[in-house]
Amino acid sequence: MQIDILKVKTQVLCGDEFAMGPGKAALLDAIDQEHSISGAGRRLGMSYRRTWLLVDSMNRCWKQKLVETLAGGGKERGARLTDTGRAVLKAYRDIEAKMLRSVDGKALAEMRDLLRDQPLPASASAKAVISTE
Amino acid sequence: MQIDILKVKTQVLCGDEFAMGPGKAALLDAIDQEHSISGAGRRLGMSYRRTWLLVDSMNRCWKQKLVETLAGGGKERGARLTDTGRAVLKAYRDIEAKMLRSVDGKALAEMRDLLRDQPLPASASAKAVISTE
Repeated sequence: MQIDILKVKTQVLCGDEFAMGPGKAALLDAIDQEHSISGAGRRLGMSYRRTWLLVDSMNRCWKQKLVETLAGGGKERGARLTDTGRAVLKAYRDIEAKMLRSVDGKALAEMRDLLRDQPLPASASAKAVISTE
Repeated sequence: MQIDILKVKTQVLCGDEFAMGPGKAALLDAIDQEHSISGAGRRLGMSYRRTWLLVDSMNRCWKQKLVETLAGGGKERGARLTDTGRAVLKAYRDIEAKMLRSVDGKALAEMRDLLRDQPLPASASAKAVISTE
């Protein structure tokens, strides 16, 4: 989520795994639109493997699956969000929306005033530190 | 910043670089306590090189330096935050604090109810996808 000069990343932890985050939420949105896991992956420019692993990770972190594949013939049987999938996605988006509205405008304006448009080039001494590595 | 099951990361963008973020804010805190860049790095368990590059990056992204080294003899001349450094750190912490207070308790409780304590092990089919890579 980007807000002016701020980038804010919210993730939900389940043990050492991330049960939800920006990429997984985008994937749920795409599955909801494409009715297909592979179609959702293509829409997001992700490999089939990565798409599949993200779905598997979500399905293992929550008490109920977030994505279910539909029975039936054909190569692409289709997929959809479960009720739990919709509930988790909505709760995640609600938290993001409230964070967005919480951003302290005064503090943000102060930082924007102090920030360059682009960083200066790396200093000679920093390059020296790098080159000795 | 961790809030119950949520991990929230806020970064300030300057072009393609991050002008501020959790690691850089922690480094500013440590420099303020140690009065030394290398001492701050040791406190945080970072290599001298990494510590130095983070300071250099911050000093290039903002219109004024955030950290200044002090003139004088000896191997460790010492370092301190500039007024701009203190202002940026405070604005960043203010934004984080407001975000923390903004977290939607209802949405968070809903997610906690639906989340497992630990993820299930990776499914056999996910392992198959990995092993064909």
